[in-house]
Amino acid sequence: MTTHTMPMLETYPAQINLDRMKLAATIDALVECSETCTACADACLSEGMVAGLTKCIRMNMDCADICAATARVLSRHTGYDANISRMLLEVCAMACKACADECASHGDMHEHCRICAESCRMCEMACRELLDSMA
Amino acid sequence: MTTHTMPMLETYPAQINLDRMKLAATIDALVECSETCTACADACLSEGMVAGLTKCIRMNMDCADICAATARVLSRHTGYDANISRMLLEVCAMACKACADECASHGDMHEHCRICAESCRMCEMACRELLDSMA
Amino acid sequence: MTTHTMPMLETYPAQINLDRMKLAATIDALVECSETCTACADACLSEGMVAGLTKCIRMNMDCADICAATARVLSRHTGYDANISRMLLEVCAMACKACADECASHGDMHEHCRICAESCRMCEMACRELLDSMA
Amino acid sequence: MTTHTMPMLETYPAQINLDRMKLAATIDALVECSETCTACADACLSEGMVAGLTKCIRMNMDCADICAATARVLSRHTGYDANISRMLLEVCAMACKACADECASHGDMHEHCRICAESCRMCEMACRELLDSMA
Repeated sequence: MTTHTMPMLETYPAQINLDRMKLAATIDALVECSETCTACADACLSEGMVAGLTKCIRMNMDCADICAATARVLSRHTGYDANISRMLLEVCAMACKACADECASHGDMHEHCRICAESCRMCEMACRELLDSMA
Repeated sequence: MTTHTMPMLETYPAQINLDRMKLAATIDALVECSETCTACADACLSEGMVAGLTKCIRMNMDCADICAATARVLSRHTGYDANISRMLLEVCAMACKACADECASHGDMHEHCRICAESCRMCEMACRELLDSMA
Repeated sequence: MTTHTMPMLETYPAQINLDRMKLAATIDALVECSETCTACADACLSEGMVAGLTKCIRMNMDCADICAATARVLSRHTGYDANISRMLLEVCAMACKACADECASHGDMHEHCRICAESCRMCEMACRELLDSMA
Repeated sequence: MTTHTMPMLETYPAQINLDRMKLAATIDALVECSETCTACADACLSEGMVAGLTKCIRMNMDCADICAATARVLSRHTGYDANISRMLLEVCAMACKACADECASHGDMHEHCRICAESCRMCEMACRELLDSMA
């Protein structure tokens, strides 16, 4: 699937003070990570050994909510206060890293956790690259 | 971008009472439509003639919120009450259609509205196909 | 806590085609139910017998997402398509009822489920009253 | 309205490493602020002079999304990584302050902005008090 994120940025009727390619890549990664984490939380709930996965489920849900909010804020090209976007990207990268680490620790047992860890790592990286380009 | 939606469904550790291909396509379309509508609302806010676009902005925001919630519910394979999923898909398809019609009516003037209308129509179609497969 | 919902409706600069008292009560109930369900899902995850509560957790999360989206849509006084609001209220009332029933079935064992069931029932009732006033 | 937030915390089946009174007050303020900001964005869209309010609308929407995500994360008593909660509270307080300042600047003209500024200030304060108690 090719997303509409880049075409939407290309047709944006005002200035955007960010690298549009990196911004599009980050929004796509955030939206994707939020969805993967929501799916992983549910897959964990379907595992027989759910009691051992409650930390993973919580982290999935936190990561899903933080990524979703960050995607929405980045999709509004407010730029009024770059400090807010920057700090949100920072906390989002932290949440993605924490979730990736937790999911990866179950990756051998649960393939959905392995896939989710991958999605979280890609998202963390995208957030950090966008942050670097803002510096 | 290839999303992780289908791999997550393929590694789901329990039964899913839905066509997995159609389910994945619908979740991807919902997540995508929610993001495109959020971006379109902001692009409309950046147009000089924003006063003529308030209906479009509201519909974009409604559609974004309904699609996001529907994606999350579909990503949990509850199946406890198919009536809820079915009715949510129904109202989501209605919101996508209404938003697509509104955006399309500005498509000649605002290219972001034309792209958004396309995203909404794809999402409406995906919801209806999944609904048909549930009947 | 007195919410700002009614003062916001009272100072709304345009017409609202709904009973403002009932609308405010419904928005407050939706926002409250969404929060209570999010908290109940997490409390269930902290129970020793979490494996017996996975259905409850999923229903809590579905109900939380549907109530949050419905609150947002009702807070935008679009009125462009009353069918969408009406159908969303309908599916929301269904989700609240389903979640209330599930939570109530654990109410003797888990007090948080008893409280959550109460919140869901209040929300279901508010949605139905608003629906009746729209007929 | 008395919310169910405190009763839910009182019946939580595990330890919570935070002052429960302050936590409940913060969650209530976040949920309330998110709703008020959503309503204020829509009220601004209904003003005749909407073109002068686009910055306010965007800030309302950013604040609504950040508050909603923060409320959800705080409602999960993960505590696995206090740094994430702390940083999220920090960015949320910043978003509330920015939105309060913007709304207050329109408070003389638009009463809904005056009410929204009040809601944002209360939320900022609640976030900061909770942060102080975590130090």
